[in-house]
Amino acid sequence: MYSYTEVKDLVEKGLALWSVPASPPRLYEPIRYLLAIGGKRFRPCLSLLTANLFTERIEACIPPALAMEVFHNFTLMHDDIIDHAPVRRGQQTVHEKWDINTAILSGDVMLVKAYVLLCSLETNKLIPALAIFNKTAIEVCEGQQSDVDFEKRNDVTIDEYLHMITLKTGVLLGCSAYIGALAGGGTEEDAQHLYTFGKHLGISFQLQDDLLDAFGDADMFGKKTGGDITQNKKTFLWITLQQKLNETDRVLFGALHNEKDERQKVRQIIDLYKKYDIQQETENLMLQYYDSAISALQKTKVTENKISVLMHVAEAIYQRKF
Amino acid sequence: MYSYTEVKDLVEKGLALWSVPASPPRLYEPIRYLLAIGGKRFRPCLSLLTANLFTERIEACIPPALAMEVFHNFTLMHDDIIDHAPVRRGQQTVHEKWDINTAILSGDVMLVKAYVLLCSLETNKLIPALAIFNKTAIEVCEGQQSDVDFEKRNDVTIDEYLHMITLKTGVLLGCSAYIGALAGGGTEEDAQHLYTFGKHLGISFQLQDDLLDAFGDADMFGKKTGGDITQNKKTFLWITLQQKLNETDRVLFGALHNEKDERQKVRQIIDLYKKYDIQQETENLMLQYYDSAISALQKTKVTENKISVLMHVAEAIYQRKF
Repeated sequence: MYSYTEVKDLVEKGLALWSVPASPPRLYEPIRYLLAIGGKRFRPCLSLLTANLFTERIEACIPPALAMEVFHNFTLMHDDIIDHAPVRRGQQTVHEKWDINTAILSGDVMLVKAYVLLCSLETNKLIPALAIFNKTAIEVCEGQQSDVDFEKRNDVTIDEYLHMITLKTGVLLGCSAYIGALAGGGTEEDAQHLYTFGKHLGISFQLQDDLLDAFGDADMFGKKTGGDITQNKKTFLWITLQQKLNETDRVLFGALHNEKDERQKVRQIIDLYKKYDIQQETENLMLQYYDSAISALQKTKVTENKISVLMHVAEAIYQRKF
Repeated sequence: MYSYTEVKDLVEKGLALWSVPASPPRLYEPIRYLLAIGGKRFRPCLSLLTANLFTERIEACIPPALAMEVFHNFTLMHDDIIDHAPVRRGQQTVHEKWDINTAILSGDVMLVKAYVLLCSLETNKLIPALAIFNKTAIEVCEGQQSDVDFEKRNDVTIDEYLHMITLKTGVLLGCSAYIGALAGGGTEEDAQHLYTFGKHLGISFQLQDDLLDAFGDADMFGKKTGGDITQNKKTFLWITLQQKLNETDRVLFGALHNEKDERQKVRQIIDLYKKYDIQQETENLMLQYYDSAISALQKTKVTENKISVLMHVAEAIYQRKF
């Protein structure tokens, strides 16, 4: 059985060996650049770990696992344009380093390259893999569009928010787990359980992200905390708070929306989060999704011993502080 | 056997029946909009006509044919952003009517939807179809990048230019013809001949486009002539002229590059095209590609009678005045 470190190593080696053409340079350099600045590689690692539940020979499962990472990076390249993000993983984003047109076209070719990697699967596995990948890719676009739409709305419900993060973050983790299982030779039933495992873990992961932005340790989190607050981002915390405010605090909250002093704004909104116990509420929901993920994992017909690595990964994600 | 009008009708009906979800509206409305403003539908028609060489039951070939049209429109949506084009087929482009972010994300989901349509093929046909479609999609992105790169260069060679239009225009017509043949039950060998037919027809088509911009009838062509000239676009005419100029005319040509009076610039450059017989040279090359396309078509193992519709289509394209 492979450890997380071992599969991460396989992913890094796989990406390093993955051939991206030299020309036209402006099309392909941004792809090499974005993949080289790192990241958690969580999606391809998840694929290889679920593959490993069913086979010890996971080499053939590397290309479809890389497809998940390449697809994820395509979404990052385009989302960074859409979100006007200047920095990604401490480095300039592609549209900043080059320009928007370059980021559009390089992203497009990355999406196609993800399909090329996926197509390395043998036919009987490729057909179901394509079905879930097509569905997932569409859902991820829908999730991103909803996220953008929410910026202009103040009446986003918790259900709408959870649906959005399910599409934007959950389903790709589900798809990665599913395709790994499929590639490794798991049954359709087990692959479905692993899809639920990945999806719910992803939702829990995103809720943790929302929490860390407000309550995380900036040094450990690797990015400035309070960013969501200054941008009036509709996070789970923001929506939950808004639903609970009494009349007086609602007026204060409304006024803070346009507060120019960012530190003041962050401090006062975090005070409101504390007053209304929003952290606890978020943690409760995270725990629900985490439990549901673990329960799906335990439904797979593999030995307790085999799922232990995935149990530890899930736990580490659930308890992460960055 | 189906006529061009009949397959075009099937394509229009297929697009009208093709279900694009309602929500999120900002993701899907631009797709409906762009597909509804029309176009020649040349790629899906070509697919259905090549399918018809091998089967009379072409209904099952409609979804993969539509995949070609949806993919083509994805490229238009993104290329229009890149080219800062305000108008497409007499209507506002998507990034003008909505915004750049909308056009990026709607385009992305269109690319995935093209794969979904393609995946309706039965497995034994889908595998080779995916191989050529992946390859083609990458080449089309490479062609667009080269086209962008050429804008900043004055030393583009004729070979480079022909390679660029092969990628940007030729290969998708080749792919459409290939996938149609495959869907209709043609052999790999016949599909390859039809690929060459489509590709060379596409190159001839693009050379005609270059010609019509300078020498076409603006009313019939449907867009203002001389647009390539005012934008200093590196067309076949531009590159060929540049290679032939004598010293005096080279100085004039260089000065015209920055001429502010557009009508003056267009008139003088067309005079140079006439002086150096560039129209004739372009027509000679068009004829070469047209002949090569027809010769590939004639290599397919179907009766003379069956290829007659495609012969007429090729001829109409070759002789088109708009």
